[in-house]
Amino acid sequence: MKSLNEITIKSINHEELQKNVQYKLDQKTKPQGSLGRLEELAVQIALIQGTNTPKLTKPVMLTIASDHHICQENVSPAPPEVTWQQVVNFLNGGGAISMFCKLYGWDLRVVDAGVDKDLQENPKLINAKVRKGTRNFLHEHAMTAKECEQAIANGRKIVKQIAQEGTNIIGFGEMGIGNTTPATALLSVFTGLSPQACTGPGCGLDEKGVAHKAEVIQKAINKHGIAKNPEENLARFGGLEIATMTGAMLEAAAQSMVIIVDGFITSSAFLTAYEINPTVKEYAIFSHQSNEHAHVKMLEHMNAKALLNLDLRLGEGTGAALAYPIVQGAVTMLNEMSSFAETEVFNVIDNANK
Amino acid sequence: MKSLNEITIKSINHEELQKNVQYKLDQKTKPQGSLGRLEELAVQIALIQGTNTPKLTKPVMLTIASDHHICQENVSPAPPEVTWQQVVNFLNGGGAISMFCKLYGWDLRVVDAGVDKDLQENPKLINAKVRKGTRNFLHEHAMTAKECEQAIANGRKIVKQIAQEGTNIIGFGEMGIGNTTPATALLSVFTGLSPQACTGPGCGLDEKGVAHKAEVIQKAINKHGIAKNPEENLARFGGLEIATMTGAMLEAAAQSMVIIVDGFITSSAFLTAYEINPTVKEYAIFSHQSNEHAHVKMLEHMNAKALLNLDLRLGEGTGAALAYPIVQGAVTMLNEMSSFAETEVFNVIDNANK
Repeated sequence: MKSLNEITIKSINHEELQKNVQYKLDQKTKPQGSLGRLEELAVQIALIQGTNTPKLTKPVMLTIASDHHICQENVSPAPPEVTWQQVVNFLNGGGAISMFCKLYGWDLRVVDAGVDKDLQENPKLINAKVRKGTRNFLHEHAMTAKECEQAIANGRKIVKQIAQEGTNIIGFGEMGIGNTTPATALLSVFTGLSPQACTGPGCGLDEKGVAHKAEVIQKAINKHGIAKNPEENLARFGGLEIATMTGAMLEAAAQSMVIIVDGFITSSAFLTAYEINPTVKEYAIFSHQSNEHAHVKMLEHMNAKALLNLDLRLGEGTGAALAYPIVQGAVTMLNEMSSFAETEVFNVIDNANK
Repeated sequence: MKSLNEITIKSINHEELQKNVQYKLDQKTKPQGSLGRLEELAVQIALIQGTNTPKLTKPVMLTIASDHHICQENVSPAPPEVTWQQVVNFLNGGGAISMFCKLYGWDLRVVDAGVDKDLQENPKLINAKVRKGTRNFLHEHAMTAKECEQAIANGRKIVKQIAQEGTNIIGFGEMGIGNTTPATALLSVFTGLSPQACTGPGCGLDEKGVAHKAEVIQKAINKHGIAKNPEENLARFGGLEIATMTGAMLEAAAQSMVIIVDGFITSSAFLTAYEINPTVKEYAIFSHQSNEHAHVKMLEHMNAKALLNLDLRLGEGTGAALAYPIVQGAVTMLNEMSSFAETEVFNVIDNANK
């Protein structure tokens, strides 16, 4: 795919800076390592920004919505109309993601990547509609190669614009009735795990519904086969919000942004980006482990560990939004917490080594 | 103990209100239960406040400090002077807890419950010093019954004052070199687990040091025996910050405050309060699971589950401070998130039941 060959993602590894940041952390007035995951976050963000005094600026939450005609196969208990209804709800400020963004200081932008409805213009809504929902991938590829490429390019363009506004931290979320089905299919395709092992209840299927959903995915994989390159699998089994997000995530890493990944669907977009270019992972913070049981398998495949485990299974970016105060805490700690040299506090470690 | 008999803690159980809050949550524009632990928090806080529109007002973090002459037995790699040095650091705004309180909106109050140093007056420092550190409990009881009672009464008085200021959510943290030793002893005494099973590295002991610490605790328990009532065990093996906190926590529950518990030491104070009156647990949110490995045993004994697991082992109240934005999120969700009736969003569940 032409547009993806243009993306360069630099590895953040920098031994000297890493040592410098670690030394700075170890001089803070606390036992070494005692702030656990926050210290890891501080190192990661310092390396992403190439400085031992990182700053988080203008956090943007990108919640990307689309429809899925795989819903014709009864893979979700919710009717497809809920996708556009929730988009309107988010824009009106009443959705879970709207509320959390307001509370924690995220600037929420909602993206229409393929909602099956003409939506009214809104300053908070970005129109990046490729088509009104992906095709029913039980019978045909979800997208043509061209449509998939367009969605990826849209995601990249949106993030480039946001980077130009001065944002260096971006959260991702989604809305799309039926989208655990493409997300599960991608997990199965990229990891080799069976659809049966990857399929969960989504927003509320019963046991029989879960078995049916797994069977639909198995049949689709049998029909289309597994392609060698990730973009082709994305076109066969993915969603327009997933493809748009995949492009957006790759571009965010290319722009040296901190990427906050939400739950199961968002992680399936990240997994696709990771299959295209694994260096993208160096820029990512996995905000939470979803209650959708296969999410943990997805994270394990990427050797990633989520920050929170709050039994969430809502999507929209809600877990990503909730993780932000902790990420802020890590950066504030690195910048503002006192060092032994600045206080009277006795440096146990340094003195023990003397 | 006279002062404890006066404390009345009401059970928050109220079937009708609980149903009402659950109905309100289930009418929010999301799949039922999809906000997981946040929904549980919302119900708990609503029941504590007796309303389906709870509000969190004037959050206060109480970080209570004291010294421990059990340190004479080489149970900590850090010198006791670090206790007062860190108190000064907290008051000057440079400590981890100072920084997190500022970031998340906590009003930090530091309490001197028994620091082995005359501290300068400071508007943020509450003087509740009972004596300059607990006695070396390898040889004698850590406190006399009277000293322990005084510490408990001090904690109660401080919290009563804070409640009068309009605070309805209170976090607890501590500072005291050597205080994992009394905390571990209390865990062993209250659960019947061996000191060997309960002892960890604290702020940085090696394997040999951990074994020695467990032996010190075992010898002390052999010498003093296990009393029938919790206050007596607290006097024998506890700390002044722990006793002050135990009183403070019981009073906080009596005042219908939301209590945010920090890590291992803070939980040992909570465990003591729980042994005195188990209803206190209904008011508690266990902010995080500490990296001190026996913390999870302490939580299991109370059938409690921590909210976060960030590999923290610093104390001071840092984990409690970090949990606050999530608790705020739960309350904001209950109050501000839109319901199906307020939006166009299709209520899948209600319609499925029709």
